[in-house]
Order: sequence, then structure tokens, then C-alpha cells
Amino acid sequence: METISENKSFGGVQGVYSHHSEATGTDMTFGLFMPPRNGSVPVLWFLSGLTCTHENAMVKAGAQAFAAEHGIAVVFPDTSPRGEGVADHEDYDLGQGAGFYVDATEAPWSPHFRMESYILNDLTELLFSEFPLDRGAQAITGHSMGGHGALTLAAKSPGRFRSVSAFSPICNPSESDWGKKQFGAYFGSVDEGRAHDASLLAGAGKLNLPLLTDTGTDDQFSALLRTDALKSAVVGRADAEVRMQDGYDHSYFFVATFMGEHVGFHAKYLTA
Amino acid sequence: METISENKSFGGVQGVYSHHSEATGTDMTFGLFMPPRNGSVPVLWFLSGLTCTHENAMVKAGAQAFAAEHGIAVVFPDTSPRGEGVADHEDYDLGQGAGFYVDATEAPWSPHFRMESYILNDLTELLFSEFPLDRGAQAITGHSMGGHGALTLAAKSPGRFRSVSAFSPICNPSESDWGKKQFGAYFGSVDEGRAHDASLLAGAGKLNLPLLTDTGTDDQFSALLRTDALKSAVVGRADAEVRMQDGYDHSYFFVATFMGEHVGFHAKYLTA
Repeated sequence: METISENKSFGGVQGVYSHHSEATGTDMTFGLFMPPRNGSVPVLWFLSGLTCTHENAMVKAGAQAFAAEHGIAVVFPDTSPRGEGVADHEDYDLGQGAGFYVDATEAPWSPHFRMESYILNDLTELLFSEFPLDRGAQAITGHSMGGHGALTLAAKSPGRFRSVSAFSPICNPSESDWGKKQFGAYFGSVDEGRAHDASLLAGAGKLNLPLLTDTGTDDQFSALLRTDALKSAVVGRADAEVRMQDGYDHSYFFVATFMGEHVGFHAKYLTA
Repeated sequence: METISENKSFGGVQGVYSHHSEATGTDMTFGLFMPPRNGSVPVLWFLSGLTCTHENAMVKAGAQAFAAEHGIAVVFPDTSPRGEGVADHEDYDLGQGAGFYVDATEAPWSPHFRMESYILNDLTELLFSEFPLDRGAQAITGHSMGGHGALTLAAKSPGRFRSVSAFSPICNPSESDWGKKQFGAYFGSVDEGRAHDASLLAGAGKLNLPLLTDTGTDDQFSALLRTDALKSAVVGRADAEVRMQDGYDHSYFFVATFMGEHVGFHAKYLTA
């Protein structure tokens, strides 16, 4: 692991690090905020959206203030493998910056686009070996494509995360052009993508952990997010809330506005 | 005035607008956060540092949360004129992105580099004619070169701002390579720059308003900031505090950490 930068932030340290990942076969960069706290620190994963790197949420989402207050670390992974020899596409929503948090099985993507394994295995092992983090106290959130990632990775690794939340998540990608296109490319079939669809996973009883999502009523991508599908899938659950926020859009201005509530939501479970 | 974007943020609106400035002879872009508040709204100016546009602080400094809480607007001007026909320099700290908040008198800068007039006249008139802001309740802050701008514009317009603060300000530019070079270029003489030096203005009794500055002890540019000169100039004043913050550097991670205290400091005077 190589340290790229470390800046003091809210009494803690906002670091940026790089390391080699076996899963992606590339060097990967991530951000990690460590709060001013001794001992084994709970950790919140923040998965970012299309076109983002590890950096966007780290500088725009305002998570550090609340993470410091609650004594929680926040990890900001990149959204795809990058670099020479890594496949890409001219569209912003396929290839580099658009890993969709799945392990691709089709050429030209399969050699490197293995973000599910990267997050759940490689980066996880690195974090818990290099930093004083509490493996037993993890939660996960994300924005847009990263909200899809948070919800689906939580569903696919039962018991690992104590709570899950998302900002403007892609909720039902197997029925959306943010999903069908990518599943078609990465798996060769949209049907394969159904195993990576938060609404279908929730409907099948596989998203059984405390859940909170926020989406703006003025989100310019609402037709692609298909928030209602997730809402229907968790209806009646006391531990799941799919909220709409009046007048907010898809931007980080929206994410920052509700970041305090999301960190507070996870803190209830992480620091209990 | 043209609206470039408006995003709901913390119950208010983060807008970006452009307008023609007579002072600079160019179109200028600025950000304005309007809090969720009716009536005539107090306003805090945030002047940015070298290489920044209107955007950096608007997305990285986390001001909106606190401005919304206190019912204060925040305006984020650009740091220089830009565009075709506007002089520039290959160095990052001269020309576009480096206006230093002065009115240049020397070629090739004098036709457009008139940021003091732009801030104090053109943008001021536009803001108070286009938005429901309270002309009698203004405060000013900024970062680095923008901290220099905040301190010196406050000194040069007595009675206009109720309070002034700064993050890692350039305190004594007429004795620093962040200052001598720019004054030499914009005025043809470093001596002319002495009228735009916060420490000299404070020493001459011309910075008589409530003042708060924060600078990190690990600021990588500390030799250029010359914080001690300002500290000496205000020593003994009950209404002026020049603070050093342990372990912090020059980045927006530092600015964001202390933003809440700075907005709270100004709120005492703006909403009294």
C-alpha cells in the first residue's frame, strides 16, 4: 500500500492510498477518513456513482464532520479499474468510471471489471490489515450507481453489514437503461443482472438489514432510478425507509444535505 | 444576469450565475447560496484562493450547512477575469485565477484585472438588485489569496462589513513571494502593494472590525503567508483573534473543519 496524501480533517485524517488488487489486476486508489478515536473503529463504506473516482464524495459529500462526531471511519473506493490495458467505452456509463459493483464475465470486461470482488475481498482485507478498523462493525452507503452497489453488496453478503443506506440509488437496474446496458455488456445478458438488482433482492427477502434511502423529487434521472420498485419491495417493513425529499436533485448538494442523517442512522447500529 | 444552475441544498438554493461586469470588461461567474429564509437576508462573502474559480469553495468548504442554520447567504465570486482577450501568465500564481483582489494599473493586466472594483462595486450592485439580501448586514471571509482579499477589502471599505475572517490568509504580501510578484506585475511596483497588505493596514489602525483567522501549523505555504505579521499587528485587541490550528494544512479539508466556527462568528454580528 502506498500513501498518496494525508490531510488532517475534523480532528481525524483524510487519507488517499493506492494498492495492487488481485481481483482487478490493477492498482486501485481509495480514500479513507479515520476519525479522532482510539481503539477499533467502526467503518462506513461509501460507494460512488457513474463517472466518479474515489475523490468526488471525499471532497463534496461532507461526511467527515459527522463521521468524526460519531467516531466512524469512512472508506471511499474508486468506481472501476483504470489504466493502460483496461477496457473502456466512449459512453460515460460503461467501462471506466462505471463498474456497477459486479464481476464481469464477458470480454473485453472480464479481466479487470471485478468490482464486487474488489470491494468485498481485496479492499476489505487491505483495510483490516492496514488500519485499526473493527471488522465486526461495518455499514455501507453510496450514491446513484453506488447506491445500487451498497444495496446489492449488502444483500449478497448477509451478516456483514449492520445497516445499509443510499442516496438516489439505482433501485431496479434490470428494468432500467442504467442497468440493462451494463448487465448486457458485463454479463452478456440482462437476465444475469437480476441477481444484482436491489428491488428483486429485497422482494426475495434478501435485503434484511436496517435500510434508509433518500431520493430527490426533482432528480433528473428519476426514470432511471425506479425508486418505486424498491419502495414496493420493502413496504410494511419497520426497519426500512425509502424516502422522497421535496425539490432535491441528483447532485452532491443533495447528498451533502442528508449526509448527517445517514451517518447518524448508521451510527445507531455501528456504535451501539 | 443569466442563471447557469440552481440546486436545492440544505433547504435553500445553491445557484450559479453569470453577468457582464463593467469593471473587468468580461462576463463573470459567481455562486450564491440562499438559505431557507424569508425577508432581507444577511450575506457572507467568501473569496477564494489561487487557481480557484467560483466553484471550489462552493462544493468543498461545507458552508451551506451552517449558512442554512443561521439564515445567512454566501456569495462565491471568481478569482479573476477570464476568457479570450484576457491576459494570462504561465505561472499558476499570476494572471487568470490569481487576481489578488486589486485593480491592476499596468499593462497587460489593467484592462481586465480589476477584481477590487468588481467585488466592491459591480457584483455588489448586482447582488442587491437581483436577490433579497440585506445591504446593511455583510461580512467577508476567504481562503489564502482570498483571505488576503477579505482582510484588505474589509480594511479598504470601513463600515461596510460587520466582521471579517480568513482561512490561511496571505497576511503580509508586500514581504512575500505571494504578493511581491503580483504587485510588481499588476502595479509595476511592490511599494504600491503596501496599500493592499493586511498586516500593514491593521498596523495603521485601518482594520477595525471583529476579526478571526485560522491557519494550520502544518500549512505547506506558511513562509508565504507570514501569519506572525498579522498577529503582531492586532496584538492586544479584544475583537481580533489570529489562531493557529495544530496539524492542519492549507487544503479545503482544513477550511471545511473550521467553517462552522467561522460562519458562527459572523452570525453573531450579522443576525444580532
